[in-house]
Amino acid sequence: MKRLINDGYDVVEEMLDGYVKAHSEDVRLSDESGRVVVSKHLSETPKVGIIFGGGSGHEPLFLGYVGKGVADAAVIGNVNTSPDPMTCYQAVKDVDNGKGCLYLYGNYQGDVINFDMGAEMAADDGIRVETVLITDDVYSSEVREDRRGVAGDVIVLMAACAAANEGKDLDEVKAVAERANLATYSLGVALSSSTLPVTGEKIFEIGEDEMEVGMGIHGEPGIVRKKIEPADSVVDEILEHILPDMKLEAGEEVSVLVNGLGALPVMDLYIVYRRVHDVLTEMGVKVHKSMVGNYATSMDMIGMSVTLTRLDEELKGYLDAEFDAPYLRQ
Amino acid sequence: MKRLINDGYDVVEEMLDGYVKAHSEDVRLSDESGRVVVSKHLSETPKVGIIFGGGSGHEPLFLGYVGKGVADAAVIGNVNTSPDPMTCYQAVKDVDNGKGCLYLYGNYQGDVINFDMGAEMAADDGIRVETVLITDDVYSSEVREDRRGVAGDVIVLMAACAAANEGKDLDEVKAVAERANLATYSLGVALSSSTLPVTGEKIFEIGEDEMEVGMGIHGEPGIVRKKIEPADSVVDEILEHILPDMKLEAGEEVSVLVNGLGALPVMDLYIVYRRVHDVLTEMGVKVHKSMVGNYATSMDMIGMSVTLTRLDEELKGYLDAEFDAPYLRQ
Repeated sequence: MKRLINDGYDVVEEMLDGYVKAHSEDVRLSDESGRVVVSKHLSETPKVGIIFGGGSGHEPLFLGYVGKGVADAAVIGNVNTSPDPMTCYQAVKDVDNGKGCLYLYGNYQGDVINFDMGAEMAADDGIRVETVLITDDVYSSEVREDRRGVAGDVIVLMAACAAANEGKDLDEVKAVAERANLATYSLGVALSSSTLPVTGEKIFEIGEDEMEVGMGIHGEPGIVRKKIEPADSVVDEILEHILPDMKLEAGEEVSVLVNGLGALPVMDLYIVYRRVHDVLTEMGVKVHKSMVGNYATSMDMIGMSVTLTRLDEELKGYLDAEFDAPYLRQ
Repeated sequence: MKRLINDGYDVVEEMLDGYVKAHSEDVRLSDESGRVVVSKHLSETPKVGIIFGGGSGHEPLFLGYVGKGVADAAVIGNVNTSPDPMTCYQAVKDVDNGKGCLYLYGNYQGDVINFDMGAEMAADDGIRVETVLITDDVYSSEVREDRRGVAGDVIVLMAACAAANEGKDLDEVKAVAERANLATYSLGVALSSSTLPVTGEKIFEIGEDEMEVGMGIHGEPGIVRKKIEPADSVVDEILEHILPDMKLEAGEEVSVLVNGLGALPVMDLYIVYRRVHDVLTEMGVKVHKSMVGNYATSMDMIGMSVTLTRLDEELKGYLDAEFDAPYLRQ
């Protein structure tokens, strides 16, 4: 196993310990749970609390986005595993200041069950918690609401946080997050599996010269497995799935997120970005905002995803807001 | 080859094209050279120009640190190859506004020859250019000035830029960069080679269960090759080399940079940071500033380095300054 860890069962606790030590000006662990990362910049004036979360192994998701003007807390599960309901609820207790909270997370069954139970526990204590599931992975289902969430998590988070920071109420913030989610479309390609810390093994095998288009960040099956192609061809194939689904037209504006899954070089990410930018420009679509980097990974998976978000003036305003967290300063 | 590129000979040009398209608010290519990335935030008032550079394949070095309050330009060579003298000189012409320029780069023979020729060309045109070589890699030589530069590049750059932004003259900025360099000590470990884009091959072979402590970012031989050990043991071995060399003592303050070499998961970097922090704290050394991430890579190399910088009040002030470039917002 080409990883630098100690005991595979301790990776999440040790990572969190290292994280709060490295970023002690921005975050702390909840007094009640070692699996809730809480911002040290919680608003003094009442605002909707934004809680991000899910399994570990996708860093900088979710902890890297807790900070000033961004997520108020992140709830952290084991590797590729949902956090439990009590932890989801604890985050609400840590951040709610009277305007209720919004749970934001990718659409995975375990997360849905546990966060929903967390919301019920909050309701029993008189705190209103709403949820927006992120469903940006184009290939994972024909039906929008059945899709998985991948790197689009970051875009939806930004929009929701900017809306919450403007003082909007819970229904309004939820509506903004829903709009941002429905405007967001992603598809990725994996050239390798990630390595699980406990077993030291890959989740799946793939040939030295192979890639899988459409694969999920936990290794969920993709559209097609084939020989690795030139970067431009891979981008073109990804866009052939995203663009018709999105029905993007000349004259529209988008944000582009080229997201590394962990082990693809920065060099390659910019070569990929170049092609996305050129294809969109050729179509007459304007790139309003671009993000290139490892925003949502699968540990040491080699691969990347492309996320496009259709923007209107309102969403542009939200995405252009100031976000200040260790991993959201790009 | 598990990379996403097009023609291996085109990677640098395509990366740069993608980079300036993605970050067009911050940077442009020089009108005279496609290998000089120039800040769009050049100071209106005269200040010492700070020019960073070296071979490609270490992204986000060097281009990711061109921006507002950081490097004024980066000079970009081919993969693992120095930029040529004319390009080094072009950067001076692009950024000098009367107070001269400082070249900052890691101590590699090709870079030294070419940047020195660039400085001579500038001198012929009446522009004074000074150089500070970065020499932070503890293992590469017993003699400080013979050491290679690795992730310490980023620390020295920050100090020099902060000093230049305060309006200091070239001699003063050079002195700050020299002090920051002499205060900085790094050592890394590689678990794999990077993959060269042109050949598609690894630079060196290493066993599936092996690592090499002290290896350079181009695959320069290290101290010892052995079985991969737990993260804490690897950190302890690195610190056993750095700490005596640095003669760090209780009561001192440092910055810590845990730098990913490209393909090591963020999770592992924080597990590594945790141990560094705990060992220093146990020693009575205070961590004033911490940085964890892929700051200076070797493309898809699996590995990391630890960089410690001894801080006094002056250096603390410089490192705490505001830096705003796509990869220096953490």
